[in-house]
Amino acid sequence: MRKHDIRRFISVLVLAAALVLPIAADEGMWLFNKPPKDVLQKQYGFTVTPEFMDHLRLASISFGGASGSFISPDGLVLTNHHVGQGAVQNLSTKERDLMKTGFYARTRGEELKVPGMELRVLHGIEDVTDQILGAEKPGMTPAEAAEARQKVIAALEKETAEKSGLRGVVVTLYSGGMYHLYKYKTHSDVRLVFAPEYLAAFFGGDQDNFTYPRYDLDITLFRIYENDKPFQSDNYIKWSTTGVREGDLVLCSGHPGSTGRLLTYSQLEFLRDTSYPFNIANLKRRQAFMHEYAKKGEEEKRVALRNLFGIENSLKATIGYQSGLLDKKLMEKKLREEQALRDGVSKSPELEKEFGSAWDEIAAVQKAYASFFKPMAFFERANGFYTTYFNVARNLVRLAMEKPKPNADRLREYRDAALPSLERGLLSPAPIYDEFETLKLGDSLTQLKEELGGTQEVKWILGDRSPKDVAAELVAGTKLKDLDLRKKLMAGGLEAIYECQDPMIKLALLVDPVSRGLRAKYEKTVEAVETRSGTRIARAMFKLEGTAIPPDATGTLRLSFGAVRSYVENGKKIPFETTYAGLYERSAKAGNKDPYELPESFLKRKAAVKLSTPINFVSTADSIGGNSGSPLVNRKGEFVGVLFDGNIQSLPTRFVYEDTVSRSVMVHAQGIIEALLKIYDAKPLVDEILGKK
Amino acid sequence: MRKHDIRRFISVLVLAAALVLPIAADEGMWLFNKPPKDVLQKQYGFTVTPEFMDHLRLASISFGGASGSFISPDGLVLTNHHVGQGAVQNLSTKERDLMKTGFYARTRGEELKVPGMELRVLHGIEDVTDQILGAEKPGMTPAEAAEARQKVIAALEKETAEKSGLRGVVVTLYSGGMYHLYKYKTHSDVRLVFAPEYLAAFFGGDQDNFTYPRYDLDITLFRIYENDKPFQSDNYIKWSTTGVREGDLVLCSGHPGSTGRLLTYSQLEFLRDTSYPFNIANLKRRQAFMHEYAKKGEEEKRVALRNLFGIENSLKATIGYQSGLLDKKLMEKKLREEQALRDGVSKSPELEKEFGSAWDEIAAVQKAYASFFKPMAFFERANGFYTTYFNVARNLVRLAMEKPKPNADRLREYRDAALPSLERGLLSPAPIYDEFETLKLGDSLTQLKEELGGTQEVKWILGDRSPKDVAAELVAGTKLKDLDLRKKLMAGGLEAIYECQDPMIKLALLVDPVSRGLRAKYEKTVEAVETRSGTRIARAMFKLEGTAIPPDATGTLRLSFGAVRSYVENGKKIPFETTYAGLYERSAKAGNKDPYELPESFLKRKAAVKLSTPINFVSTADSIGGNSGSPLVNRKGEFVGVLFDGNIQSLPTRFVYEDTVSRSVMVHAQGIIEALLKIYDAKPLVDEILGKK
Repeated sequence: MRKHDIRRFISVLVLAAALVLPIAADEGMWLFNKPPKDVLQKQYGFTVTPEFMDHLRLASISFGGASGSFISPDGLVLTNHHVGQGAVQNLSTKERDLMKTGFYARTRGEELKVPGMELRVLHGIEDVTDQILGAEKPGMTPAEAAEARQKVIAALEKETAEKSGLRGVVVTLYSGGMYHLYKYKTHSDVRLVFAPEYLAAFFGGDQDNFTYPRYDLDITLFRIYENDKPFQSDNYIKWSTTGVREGDLVLCSGHPGSTGRLLTYSQLEFLRDTSYPFNIANLKRRQAFMHEYAKKGEEEKRVALRNLFGIENSLKATIGYQSGLLDKKLMEKKLREEQALRDGVSKSPELEKEFGSAWDEIAAVQKAYASFFKPMAFFERANGFYTTYFNVARNLVRLAMEKPKPNADRLREYRDAALPSLERGLLSPAPIYDEFETLKLGDSLTQLKEELGGTQEVKWILGDRSPKDVAAELVAGTKLKDLDLRKKLMAGGLEAIYECQDPMIKLALLVDPVSRGLRAKYEKTVEAVETRSGTRIARAMFKLEGTAIPPDATGTLRLSFGAVRSYVENGKKIPFETTYAGLYERSAKAGNKDPYELPESFLKRKAAVKLSTPINFVSTADSIGGNSGSPLVNRKGEFVGVLFDGNIQSLPTRFVYEDTVSRSVMVHAQGIIEALLKIYDAKPLVDEILGKK
Repeated sequence: MRKHDIRRFISVLVLAAALVLPIAADEGMWLFNKPPKDVLQKQYGFTVTPEFMDHLRLASISFGGASGSFISPDGLVLTNHHVGQGAVQNLSTKERDLMKTGFYARTRGEELKVPGMELRVLHGIEDVTDQILGAEKPGMTPAEAAEARQKVIAALEKETAEKSGLRGVVVTLYSGGMYHLYKYKTHSDVRLVFAPEYLAAFFGGDQDNFTYPRYDLDITLFRIYENDKPFQSDNYIKWSTTGVREGDLVLCSGHPGSTGRLLTYSQLEFLRDTSYPFNIANLKRRQAFMHEYAKKGEEEKRVALRNLFGIENSLKATIGYQSGLLDKKLMEKKLREEQALRDGVSKSPELEKEFGSAWDEIAAVQKAYASFFKPMAFFERANGFYTTYFNVARNLVRLAMEKPKPNADRLREYRDAALPSLERGLLSPAPIYDEFETLKLGDSLTQLKEELGGTQEVKWILGDRSPKDVAAELVAGTKLKDLDLRKKLMAGGLEAIYECQDPMIKLALLVDPVSRGLRAKYEKTVEAVETRSGTRIARAMFKLEGTAIPPDATGTLRLSFGAVRSYVENGKKIPFETTYAGLYERSAKAGNKDPYELPESFLKRKAAVKLSTPINFVSTADSIGGNSGSPLVNRKGEFVGVLFDGNIQSLPTRFVYEDTVSRSVMVHAQGIIEALLKIYDAKPLVDEILGKK
């Protein structure tokens, strides 16, 4: 720890002298085409080869907001239970609650195809910065520049699909300082192989979420099929049987969602003062709603749980992020760093002219955005229409509106590159529970009325009736559960939508103009300025410091690294790994009661389990939401664990990395094997994982 | 008369033999590029020259739904008072009611510029049938074919504007059997020169409308300016000072709106059973509304009158048309004629294969259309939103939606060729009376509720409130009277519309999807079939009979002709012309009371008027609504009168021409001069008209 403190002290000196922003030892969610070779070499004596990076990339899987990896040559995929939970829920019925019972397909024939699931593997990265920035012409307004860039982006994405059949997605890095074209292979035949009981996966529940020590078997196994056969590939991660020790280097390959380490001070203030307070209040309301709903009965509890995990997870995370922003020291540090960069810019009249105004411009639009943040959330982000039916209706409506437009003129989520998943999602037979949807919609319409009751749209939607009555009528009236109707509407274009009498489609049409108006306002007056000025700040940074600091997370594949390391909390040493012994103890101590209730299987098989087997461990590897399901590998590239959480101290690292107490939390590779063998009798699966087949 | 009967008898024989549909002696609204040379030569010994046609065409003026002509080299334009009435109203104020007082600009400086008025002169005609029909490819559905044709049409119209600066409009003739491209010069600086008092123009009021004998000074004079100077042209009609006599040939150049002489029997049934009953009931409701409103006071009466004329005129006309369709003999005749053509087709297996199914296809879509005729009327045709504000709002909304689309993909009325007038209309400072608009909107919302109260849109618009309250709130809330706001919305595109909080804009947005849905349904499932099958019927007719029968009226310039001729009604001979003596007698007989009240000027100047001067006259020349304002010329091409009406017997000629009792009614050229000189002291104007200046 001391070593780290000294380094930080030196950093501050360096900063003052050379304007290089400090980067902490194990900091960084690195681009796969720009891995931290020097740092790894210097700090860990580890040599990164192109082969290592390519293999790891092709073995890594995007779950769309989360991560996973191939762990066998037969397309076996490992991720977290909380990542696969939607699939497990969708495969559950009133009679067969897989969340409760868990699932294991003893033969491949028993593997369950997941409706609407889609996984992606990154097959290539191309730097397209010059092409995209070249679209901007002098004299363009920020909005015009954004539009010009969007056209090039859309063309590149379309071209990728046409040339390679891969899905092209242009990723904006450094707020627009850099653009990379990512090329994905999409897998849409995904089958469930194994899931433990929810009680085992989420042992400790919301209470232990974002804490450590932990004892969670937060895993689920899927298998990717192609042409009805298991997908074959050498790009999978071999299993380590040796475990990890204190100080071991681990590398993490996953899809961190977003960080705000390069945000300006005014953007952090916006999050702190406007965005997070709203999101926290909103999540709390939904959490309370779900708890209330869960009380209604077993089936309701099952349905509520499905939503509750995500809500409570986001809530805890957001509160954690906010705690960072409410920390005066952290904010002072951000301000100092920003001031240092601005000072560096202002020292050169040339730089000052080119970049000097960027920070103030961003600050100005934060203020403007605050004035319509709420309507934006309620209408365009559909916060006022909290039901799957509305999502379906809006997608159908907008798909019909956008599809006839030239690709580049469409709303981003309706570009050609995005259509296959969107359309697949629209035809997913995932179950919808009308009573639940009615209550959710009623509650969000109530919120809508409270917040925006004076707008014409809300007056129309509600009239003099109660939000709950309106919600009941809407859900009772909609026929959008019917996949044939959705298909018909997708095929019929805008005319079919306009002729459709479905009340949910009508609702989506009613709120579309105001939603688009707000979105356009946001994109043209806020986002475009943030991007243009953010790009200028990035370029100033590149000029003064190069690209030593990796870009903020963007939900795309990144490499992070760190050491397996225990830490000290409240004067107490927290060991780097936990064991099955600890798990059983924790449960016993709580009388095996919620949230420390173990499933039957764990209780019954306790005698068979080798209690010293590690179950979870931590490392300093940088991570954030989206990294869930990321494989961690050792120097040999072997699988040592799957990331499923960060401790509570890790949350403020969204804005400032630190590694004294912040840790990523993993399920241990050995713990997984132990459970599969001893508790679930899944020897064939273990053989496949260990390559013994 | 006898001669005519013999001819008809022969026609029937000919029909039976050769399938030629009979065309009555003076029948026909002929295309200017295909005038009835042979008929005129044979029947009247009159030789039509290209020079005659060109001159008459360039001296004729489209008032957009009505007609007029140049009558001096200094851009003086004559039309009816009821055609110019909107302009006269728009130039009126509470203090200066020009409808009541009349108007005469004694000097050019006093001529009043009319806001938003636009006149058009037809500068060229081009046959584009091959180009447009060539767009259809085998295997296309009717809707696809319609779309393909529309694209060519839009391109041709756009090209015309680009190449010549003229406004191109493709006119569909013979239900799509023929397409002509009309090229218009647009005049938008139009000033009011002279208008008589409403009492003189519309003597006899609604009671005498569509009747004869008549005594109306239904004229208004405008002047076209260019670059702030009177428009100079040799293409004007010289005035006849000799009058007309029984049997004289007269030629009429004007813009008959629409006829249905070539409609199929099922289309006539649709009009009789669905369209006309709805329109008549609707017009009656509006008529009652206006009469009620007029009772509120002088100002209200003035405002109501403005609308009343059009309503009562349409009502009487529609009832007249309907009387034709309710006449079993007429319908039997139509059925016989159709059957004769179908028999002709079925005699040839080749023709039968190509054209045989066309009639049944049209019949099928009539039935389909009846099922959504009402929603179409209330939403897309805006019958439910009877206020100028809604028209403005809808145009602003749709302009913003359509303008970014490629020209050919837009709704027809938002194509490039139509935009200049549309945009000018949107910026017209014509007065709007809020109380009046509130009541109109309230009444039409009431109707909307009665007819379509169950639809989602109506539920949203009205909620639990009364239509009158909703109307009051909408009109009170809208700011669309403000031309600067309209300008801003026109400039701001769709985003400005979407951000706009104006309740009338919101309303237009709300009903836009359902309206477009209905329109698309109509265009694709009804109109496209009517056009395709109508085209086939026209082609069958061309094959069997050539193009001896002119196409139905299409609101575009046509030549008709006939004789000045008295007729017999209820055994009583109706003289071909009326005189000022008759006018004063009629007024005296009614105690000079409404609707036979004469204005002060007529009463005061009676002694000066030569009472034997003719004021109105009739002829057999074919006409229909839209011909109002058409100049009638004699063999020398001299102006002998301006058409302002047809007698009641002329109304069923919409479907079947006849000339025993059906007559067009004109204001007599001499009557005009007499009034201008003796009653209005307008000698300078008379000198200009008579070329004495």
